[in-house]
Amino acid sequence: MSDPSTENPDVRLQQLREAIDETDSALLNLLQQRKQLAAEVGVVKRSLGQPLYVPEREAKLLAARREEAAVVGLSPDLIEDVLRRVIRESYQQQQAADVHLQCKTIVVVGGKGALGGLFVERFREAGATVHCLDKDDWEQAEDYCQQADLVLVSVPIAATEAIINRLPKLPENCILADVTSVKEKPLQAMLDCHVGPVVGLHPMFGPQVATLAKQLIVITEGRQPDAYQWLIDTLSRWGAQLYTTTAAQHDEAMGFIQVMRHLSTFVYGAHLAEEHADLQQLLDLSSPIYRLELMMVGRLFAQNADLYADIILAHPENFAMLRRYLATFDEYLATLEQGDKSKFVDKFAEVSLYFGDFSQKFLEDSQRLLASAGDAHQLSQIAGR
Amino acid sequence: MSDPSTENPDVRLQQLREAIDETDSALLNLLQQRKQLAAEVGVVKRSLGQPLYVPEREAKLLAARREEAAVVGLSPDLIEDVLRRVIRESYQQQQAADVHLQCKTIVVVGGKGALGGLFVERFREAGATVHCLDKDDWEQAEDYCQQADLVLVSVPIAATEAIINRLPKLPENCILADVTSVKEKPLQAMLDCHVGPVVGLHPMFGPQVATLAKQLIVITEGRQPDAYQWLIDTLSRWGAQLYTTTAAQHDEAMGFIQVMRHLSTFVYGAHLAEEHADLQQLLDLSSPIYRLELMMVGRLFAQNADLYADIILAHPENFAMLRRYLATFDEYLATLEQGDKSKFVDKFAEVSLYFGDFSQKFLEDSQRLLASAGDAHQLSQIAGR
Repeated sequence: MSDPSTENPDVRLQQLREAIDETDSALLNLLQQRKQLAAEVGVVKRSLGQPLYVPEREAKLLAARREEAAVVGLSPDLIEDVLRRVIRESYQQQQAADVHLQCKTIVVVGGKGALGGLFVERFREAGATVHCLDKDDWEQAEDYCQQADLVLVSVPIAATEAIINRLPKLPENCILADVTSVKEKPLQAMLDCHVGPVVGLHPMFGPQVATLAKQLIVITEGRQPDAYQWLIDTLSRWGAQLYTTTAAQHDEAMGFIQVMRHLSTFVYGAHLAEEHADLQQLLDLSSPIYRLELMMVGRLFAQNADLYADIILAHPENFAMLRRYLATFDEYLATLEQGDKSKFVDKFAEVSLYFGDFSQKFLEDSQRLLASAGDAHQLSQIAGR
Repeated sequence: MSDPSTENPDVRLQQLREAIDETDSALLNLLQQRKQLAAEVGVVKRSLGQPLYVPEREAKLLAARREEAAVVGLSPDLIEDVLRRVIRESYQQQQAADVHLQCKTIVVVGGKGALGGLFVERFREAGATVHCLDKDDWEQAEDYCQQADLVLVSVPIAATEAIINRLPKLPENCILADVTSVKEKPLQAMLDCHVGPVVGLHPMFGPQVATLAKQLIVITEGRQPDAYQWLIDTLSRWGAQLYTTTAAQHDEAMGFIQVMRHLSTFVYGAHLAEEHADLQQLLDLSSPIYRLELMMVGRLFAQNADLYADIILAHPENFAMLRRYLATFDEYLATLEQGDKSKFVDKFAEVSLYFGDFSQKFLEDSQRLLASAGDAHQLSQIAGR
């Protein structure tokens, strides 16, 4: 600090900025070094046949750095957030554990579709003989299926049952599985048309994912779990998180998670369009949370209308639930129109009790997320200049 | 690689993990070093009276590191995400630029409330003489206000106009301002009761923010902008982003951004409660996007019912718009109940056109955000064990 330049704050500011730039470059080099180490971990794990994602190792690593950060007075959340981001990158670049399916013959019905194609690619990488069966080559169905160890159905929801019913007779040990986002009816159709092992899968992600690591796949048991265990093990080695439930519970939950959410998001967007709301102005005037919500609405309309219509139409029993939602909306809007605040406030308290500890947890988790949404918005603004 | 230990993959894996841990510790030390440099930048900026947040410097810094990353084969998004997270931490720890309000006397009506208190604290730090005026000490109003350079009204929406009308006569050069989340009526009330400078503010953030850096404040002009410029400059030096619009445009946008969003979120939560939906199961079965949406619903109920009721009730003219939303919902639900997919698909295409480039941009931005939401979920799961 005896350097005379430090007495001129403008010069000092420039020096500090250069020092920050140098630190950032050093940081960049460390990240590059870490990336190479992680890639090598991937190679070694492949040779050992170990799973890519080991939650315990990750938790231990983060806990150790958090503790270290606290000691030197750095925010433990900061180092954890940074490392999580770095680790995510590693997963995307590491190869999954070696999966050997050389002895398997797999038929993916709808394998030319986006989600079907993702599984075709993975199975082929693992050495399996994979046949894609689509509308235009259905005459091959019998040929392909007679040697199959697995027939995976990945077709639009509305067509799933009909296509399952059209399948030729499968070998007794062949697994019949589907990846439809409803489960009860396709599972029943599979059980009805095949005597061997049956399992229903619902991958809770889109075909754009870079890897299956950490992605959720819901499993609904059909028949002979021991016989389809190799398929489950394969998904697990690819890094997927598996959650097993019944088809009925799955479909009930999807009534909320998919049907209601998609429909209300659709109507929200349609309403904004009909009201000619000025989107740029809404963005300019939004806090991060509203910007996030608008983003969640708008993103729907960059996607496939048929897919969403099919999800909503697949379970007509949800319509009564949606009618009850509309009735609830009408009820509270009516009380507010009458200037009656008390019913709203009373119900609010009741719903708070229903959410219990979740609401506080959601508030905290979303604060963290919104902070990073704020960062991202800044980026778009700058990029848009 | 000629080290014999590398021939044993288990040993090699252990070595690699140790090397990763060392790299992470080195990274932690760099972050600590960067934090100290940034803190010193804050001190120098204070002495220079420079604003905390300089978007151009930040953009330049990120662009330089992105380029450097691309050269060495590291993901530019990775280094940018990491640096944004680090920069956010710096803002939270840096002190704002020196603001000198020693010569100002400021009255904050409702200064004991959370948001009012935030401003009281900032003004006091800047050296101003600050008086809080609340219900229980209203007899002081005349005393406090007769010397005031600024009277800032920060009270519940429903009470805002009444309180403005009860204010004593203010000095002619005194600024009268409010921070209510509706703007037309309070602005009019302020213009009616005071002949001097008037401005309406809407801080688009909650009182829990750590700093005003990058936070949005909407400004609606009232009267004599030159005379209230020192207040605007103060907000700017604290790092806030300012967006100026008319009270009418502000309120129209808030019909969507606040009223409609709050009410539909409230009804969504009330509906889940009435349907006795199993929240843990919904979370277990959710992909990151649904988890995020459930989080956005649940977080509402950890907050203040009165605040939300007041926001909805403040603009009765929004009720007609909300009725139109319900009618649109009913219309599309009815067509789907009849199994008519075409109207949904047609409208979907129309709304896609309305969103235009925004929908694709929202999809991309949200992908990025959802990836980090996935990281965070992992954390909660691990912490919950």
